Amino acid sequence: MRTKTPFLREKMLEAAGKLFGSKRFHEVRMEDIAAEAAVSKGTLYRYFQDKEEMFLAILARASHELVLELRARVAEANTSRERLIAVADAIITFFDRRPHLFDLIQRAELAQGQGRAFPWQEARDKGMRIVLDIFAAARQAGEFTVSQPETAMLMLLGGLRAVVRAGVQPRPQGLARDIVDGFLIGAAAPTRKRSQKLARV
Amino acid sequence: MRTKTPFLREKMLEAAGKLFGSKRFHEVRMEDIAAEAAVSKGTLYRYFQDKEEMFLAILARASHELVLELRARVAEANTSRERLIAVADAIITFFDRRPHLFDLIQRAELAQGQGRAFPWQEARDKGMRIVLDIFAAARQAGEFTVSQPETAMLMLLGGLRAVVRAGVQPRPQGLARDIVDGFLIGAAAPTRKRSQKLARV
Repeated sequence: MRTKTPFLREKMLEAAGKLFGSKRFHEVRMEDIAAEAAVSKGTLYRYFQDKEEMFLAILARASHELVLELRARVAEANTSRERLIAVADAIITFFDRRPHLFDLIQRAELAQGQGRAFPWQEARDKGMRIVLDIFAAARQAGEFTVSQPETAMLMLLGGLRAVVRAGVQPRPQGLARDIVDGFLIGAAAPTRKRSQKLARV
Repeated sequence: MRTKTPFLREKMLEAAGKLFGSKRFHEVRMEDIAAEAAVSKGTLYRYFQDKEEMFLAILARASHELVLELRARVAEANTSRERLIAVADAIITFFDRRPHLFDLIQRAELAQGQGRAFPWQEARDKGMRIVLDIFAAARQAGEFTVSQPETAMLMLLGGLRAVVRAGVQPRPQGLARDIVDGFLIGAAAPTRKRSQKLARV
């Protein structure tokens, strides 16, 4: 058997990612992936047992990419509010660029129930951790205090998920900012007091 | 062929619902459902082609039940804030009583991608409509104004979904109220001002 090369593996995952990203799972065939990667079906199967294994590998990669993206964006921001906006914007942008990613995550979640690994877990755990860390830093810096951090974090990330899935497209300008401001000062904040309230955040 | 009776159909769905509610999808066999309903496998198959058809029927029923529950709870409440708390509490309670419902919904969503009906759609559409109607009534009554109702509604329902899925169990007391208050006046509201702000909502 010939040696496996990371380069070739990467190339095939790239091709599979492209196809899973533009078609639904059941429409993608292993031979399409081989053609897209310009390798033979035999080569493809030498690296990946089946479509299931490929999509789990793609999901693990996407999960890791999102975490890197979140960290990079958060590091660039200057206040806790801006860090939360960076998180919201990074998540919306990431999923908008990968319209079928939700399907893959759901498929992986169901497969997890049947004992398979859940490669999206990294993004989930670390995403939650990043938001909680921003809350803690905001409190320490005297910027704002989130009274129930765990629940608030779930409300923010769960809400973002729903906006990504069901919100209008194309996205309204300033969407991430509006979401975070609504989250921090309340959806029912009187309009004329918004800027005043935000000044205190 | 003998006549099909609604009573028997109901009885089998009840049994299937119980099994799907306590076990994972792939662990439930048609013969377990037949045994639970005290009918023969032949009778079961006369009503339902396969497990897939049964779980879609169960999901349609659960979807309808949730909508009825939401409407009943909302009708009992006296203010718009209380109506939102009723919605939040009804959703949390409904899913907590059916721990495997999420799995079934996800499975149905994936099946939808393959052209099957999505029986959870009713709960989704009507749940969103109920929340938007509460926002509109709150505005009309001069209680509070949600400046971006569509986004806010998605943030509330998506956030609730995440709390149901990943929030601590047993649920903290007053969870639905805390979620709605955080949603209305903001997660970063200074604690000492919370009651004051809520008085204005």
